[in-house]
Amino acid sequence: MKKIMMMALALLMAGSAVAQDVQLPAPQKNVPMSLMDALQLRTSVRQYSDKALDDATLSQVLWAACGINRPDTKKITAPSAINAQDILVYVVRQDGAWLFLPLTNSLRRVSTKDLRKEVAGFQEFAAKAPVSLVLVSDKAKFGNRNRGADQLGAMDAGYVSENIYLVCTALGLGTVARATMDHEALRRELGLSDEQVPLLNHPVGWLQ
Amino acid sequence: MKKIMMMALALLMAGSAVAQDVQLPAPQKNVPMSLMDALQLRTSVRQYSDKALDDATLSQVLWAACGINRPDTKKITAPSAINAQDILVYVVRQDGAWLFLPLTNSLRRVSTKDLRKEVAGFQEFAAKAPVSLVLVSDKAKFGNRNRGADQLGAMDAGYVSENIYLVCTALGLGTVARATMDHEALRRELGLSDEQVPLLNHPVGWLQ
Repeated sequence: MKKIMMMALALLMAGSAVAQDVQLPAPQKNVPMSLMDALQLRTSVRQYSDKALDDATLSQVLWAACGINRPDTKKITAPSAINAQDILVYVVRQDGAWLFLPLTNSLRRVSTKDLRKEVAGFQEFAAKAPVSLVLVSDKAKFGNRNRGADQLGAMDAGYVSENIYLVCTALGLGTVARATMDHEALRRELGLSDEQVPLLNHPVGWLQ
Repeated sequence: MKKIMMMALALLMAGSAVAQDVQLPAPQKNVPMSLMDALQLRTSVRQYSDKALDDATLSQVLWAACGINRPDTKKITAPSAINAQDILVYVVRQDGAWLFLPLTNSLRRVSTKDLRKEVAGFQEFAAKAPVSLVLVSDKAKFGNRNRGADQLGAMDAGYVSENIYLVCTALGLGTVARATMDHEALRRELGLSDEQVPLLNHPVGWLQ
C-alpha cells in the first residue's frame, strides 16, 4: 500500500512538473493602429530580431488570435464553424511548449523541450523567431457534425491566422503563416490525439 | 455569310449586355476604429436594415476582403497559400451578380438575376441583406501544386472571411459567415468552372 502511494505521489509530482499553468498579463488593447492601416500594412515577414518576446506582448497576440471577446458567452475573436472553437494555439519557445487557454488567459506547459526546429522543418529562418505559434484543429470539437471537419478546421485556422497577421502588424512584429513543419514530431511532443491536426504555424518576432 | 455575321453580332451584343465592368470608387481607408476594437467587437449579425449598401461602402468592404495593398507586387490584404490568390469574391444583389476584380477595383457583371435567395438557401434572414458576398476558391490557381487545394482553399476563404467580419465591424455593418447556400444554382448562375468551389458566403447589411 505504501509503495502504491509513493508511486502515485511520484506520478503526481512528475505530472505537475509538466502541467504548470502560467497566468499571462491581461492583454493591453489600447493599440492605436486602425484596422484599415493593419490591412494596408499586412505582409509576410521571414526575418526576425533575436530579441525575446515578453509575456505582455505575447498576451496581446494570443488574445487577438482567439481570445475571449465576449466573457458572458465565452465567445472568441475568431469565428468558427458551429462555434466549435476547434483551433488550439500552442506557444513554442526556448523554455518549452505551452497550450494557450483562452478562458483563463494562461499557458499550460505541455513539453519542456525547445521545439522551434520541429516547427521550422526545412526552413531554418523560422527557428530563429523567439516564438512560434502552432495552430491545431481539434476535430473532436465538431462532435457528430464532423463530416466536413477537415474543411471547417482549415477555414477556422485561416480565421485565427489572419488575426495573428493583423495583430503582429499593429504591434510592430513580423510573422508568416506556414504549413511546413515536422508534423509527426509535433504530434508526439505536444501530446496530440489522432483528431488534433496541426494545420499552420506562425514564427513571431520583432522586426529587424 | 450575312446570316453568320448577324448571329455573331447578336452573340457579341448579348455577351456585352452581361459583361459590363463597373468601376468602384477608391476605397476610403480613413476609418478610425482600431484593430483591437474591431477584434473586441467582432460578432455574427443575422438581422439587417433594408437600407441599400452604397458603392463607396461596398468598395471599402471588398478592399478589406482581398483588395490590393501592395500595388507594386499586386499582393492583397488576405494571405493565401503560395500567393495563389485563389479566392474570388462575387457580389450578389438585387441588380445581379458581379465578380470583384481587385486589380482594377471594379465589378464585372456575371448575371442579371437577383441570386440572394440562392445564397440564402433555407435561412431566410440571409436573403434580406442588401448584398451577399460569395467566396469561391478557384482551385486551378494552385496549378500543379493543387494536391492540397481543398485544404488550402478553405484556409484562404477563412482569411478573406475574417477580413470581411472585421471591416464590417469597423464600418457599422453586420455580417455572418455561412456555408449554407444553393451550391448547384450558384455554380450555374455565376458560371463557375468545375474547379471553382463556393465555400462561404457573407450577407452584409447595415445594423438595424
